Amino acid sequence: MNDSQFSSSLLENAISEFAKLPGIGRKSALRLVLYLLRQSNEEVTNFGNAFIRLRNEIKYCKCCHNISDTEVCAICSNPKRDAKTICVVENIKDVLSIENTQQFHGLYHVLGGVISPMDGIGPSDLNIANLVERVGNEKPDEVILALSPTMEGDTTNFYIYKKLIASDSTIKVTTIARGIAIGDELEYADEITLGRSIVNRTPYQENV
Amino acid sequence: MNDSQFSSSLLENAISEFAKLPGIGRKSALRLVLYLLRQSNEEVTNFGNAFIRLRNEIKYCKCCHNISDTEVCAICSNPKRDAKTICVVENIKDVLSIENTQQFHGLYHVLGGVISPMDGIGPSDLNIANLVERVGNEKPDEVILALSPTMEGDTTNFYIYKKLIASDSTIKVTTIARGIAIGDELEYADEITLGRSIVNRTPYQENV
Repeated sequence: MNDSQFSSSLLENAISEFAKLPGIGRKSALRLVLYLLRQSNEEVTNFGNAFIRLRNEIKYCKCCHNISDTEVCAICSNPKRDAKTICVVENIKDVLSIENTQQFHGLYHVLGGVISPMDGIGPSDLNIANLVERVGNEKPDEVILALSPTMEGDTTNFYIYKKLIASDSTIKVTTIARGIAIGDELEYADEITLGRSIVNRTPYQENV
Repeated sequence: MNDSQFSSSLLENAISEFAKLPGIGRKSALRLVLYLLRQSNEEVTNFGNAFIRLRNEIKYCKCCHNISDTEVCAICSNPKRDAKTICVVENIKDVLSIENTQQFHGLYHVLGGVISPMDGIGPSDLNIANLVERVGNEKPDEVILALSPTMEGDTTNFYIYKKLIASDSTIKVTTIARGIAIGDELEYADEITLGRSIVNRTPYQENV
């Protein structure tokens, strides 16, 4: 489908705006716009305003840099959360993923990315200095490094570990377990993961 | 991913709005919202307003019922188009598809759907009475029925044909050719299509 084939510039404009989004081409954009055209004026107004309001009013939590409606996010200000455990994640999507597991009850620290010299992202572009300062002030029992097991993630893990140890050598720093994903077949697992899962084997537990 | 897991109601709201769109789940919605968050305020405002403006300001052409910025659409008001040929289509997407072929230079008539008793859509829900009236007034040389070759499309073709013939028995009504799609393998064609393509065979043309 070519550009600017349509007789309506309003339609053309709406399609172009959708097509700017990642993973949405002009055909999908047209389909979405036609869907919106079938909705009421009010619904479409709510739709458009949701993004405008989000962009204009969103804040980042001053403790953990998670996305928030308020100065301090709902997780940091929740007295039921375990403030003695800080989980370091790459971005707010990872906060959501971990929250969905319902297995973590501590606080987060969102780095805003990982160290990636290829993309020109160094430690100073991330919330690492804040983290070290925060750990110094709050004196948590444990810092969990929950970055993706990629080269960049591992580099960032190592960098943060060194920084934390440098300022307090007694601090407990852990990483999330790496191993065979639940439901995976052993024969399709890569050898590094499989090797690590044998080295880091855990005692058999009956009901897990 | 469950509902309302996120600490920010603004984010939650934006995700829900995206997830209302057909074919977009909450995971994709989150990805799109995070993309928008990385854009400038102005870009996101343009994004949101594009849909609000479209919905509030769009018109339907009073001649052909195509979507339009003005009372009469750019196709109907174009003096270079052949006003003596009217192509009847199901919806505005079909107008776009046919325009993209650059093979049709006449005018359109958008029905707004096809007769479908299963979905409770009868002839009175569509722009069929308008079409018969328009054909009576404009006296075109030819009316092309370009509906999809489905049961509903064929039913609608038949209904329109009967209505047009009833008001003017000399009118030329045609349908788009059905046959083997270009690039298709004969062995995979369904037998009805293949059968029709033999019955409706055309003289061999060298340069088509």
